[in-house]
Amino acid sequence: MPKYVFHYFDIRGRGEPGRMLFAMAGVPFKDDRIPQANWPQVKDKTPSGSLPYLEIDGTILTQSLVIFRHLARCFGLDGENLLDKSKVEEITEYLAEMKEAAFACFLGPQDEESQKSLKEKLVNSVNKTCVQIDRIISSNKSAEGWAVGKKVTFADIFIFEAFTVILAAQPNVLDKFPKIQNVCRKMESHSVMKKYLSQRKQTPY
Amino acid sequence: MPKYVFHYFDIRGRGEPGRMLFAMAGVPFKDDRIPQANWPQVKDKTPSGSLPYLEIDGTILTQSLVIFRHLARCFGLDGENLLDKSKVEEITEYLAEMKEAAFACFLGPQDEESQKSLKEKLVNSVNKTCVQIDRIISSNKSAEGWAVGKKVTFADIFIFEAFTVILAAQPNVLDKFPKIQNVCRKMESHSVMKKYLSQRKQTPY
Repeated sequence: MPKYVFHYFDIRGRGEPGRMLFAMAGVPFKDDRIPQANWPQVKDKTPSGSLPYLEIDGTILTQSLVIFRHLARCFGLDGENLLDKSKVEEITEYLAEMKEAAFACFLGPQDEESQKSLKEKLVNSVNKTCVQIDRIISSNKSAEGWAVGKKVTFADIFIFEAFTVILAAQPNVLDKFPKIQNVCRKMESHSVMKKYLSQRKQTPY
Repeated sequence: MPKYVFHYFDIRGRGEPGRMLFAMAGVPFKDDRIPQANWPQVKDKTPSGSLPYLEIDGTILTQSLVIFRHLARCFGLDGENLLDKSKVEEITEYLAEMKEAAFACFLGPQDEESQKSLKEKLVNSVNKTCVQIDRIISSNKSAEGWAVGKKVTFADIFIFEAFTVILAAQPNVLDKFPKIQNVCRKMESHSVMKKYLSQRKQTPY
């Protein structure tokens, strides 16, 4: 097993799905949590000036989705065949766009006009993401209730993680999407995930 | 071999790397080029309201990068091992961000103030992309001159395609990056690519 070091801020943010992948696979890693106050000094020493990045026995990978897909492939959480692998990726692509719209709201300009426009974009993004993910889950012929194929994949982990963020602000967004709700419930009650959630470091976001 | 239908506008735009992947692999596909004038009528009939999308024996895949990675995997153009696959993806992620910055300039508001800000973002994006791709190519121990590993991959195809777009507007951006220039030259003079370029439908962008 290679030696993994996952570098990210001391928050869930964009990096949390990476930590969840390690947890689900039961693979040990060094969780390098960089305090935001240290970032100006640390930034120029990172490979791309951004977090997260991953070290794998010293080899560097940057770009959060690239890192997540790498871990999912290494841990067998990427889907069982070529089409399933791409459906897992399709779901995660929509979720990443939705999370970026949420971050834009949270981290962007806070004046009334900007927030109105950013919130409108977020609502549209959440709606599009729900419709698209529901479409993909609905094409799954397995009765197991996971998003893609018969087994848990990174798609389920990321659905659960991303909608936990969104539901905290908009509790009704999944009311019309029982299949997505079901994935979230299955993931939340998965014994490995339950243990991880009960033990992970508590941060405000 | 499945029956592929690639749906995109009648331009190169975001879709061209998909067509290039089919060409490099010598795999036939139906190239459904939708005239921009028809888009308002077609949009609601597409799976996600966006182009490109791909049909594979009737199964739908959306999201351009998901489609490209799917084709690269199916055609063996995705890298030879787990780390190489992720480096190919890392390169394509930076290129896609750079192309989005170029589209934002081209398709965004054309007033002086907006263009100044969009062009500044594009210059920063091009510079970051060059530095990051140069870093990744430099870590390749093979002497063959391809971006990742010993053989041509989707990373080479996308480097060539994306920098063709950028170099048309900014001819000097690769002056300090001979390794990226070399990939572009190797790709441009590859017999299969040469034939494709000489035969493809000419469109303004």
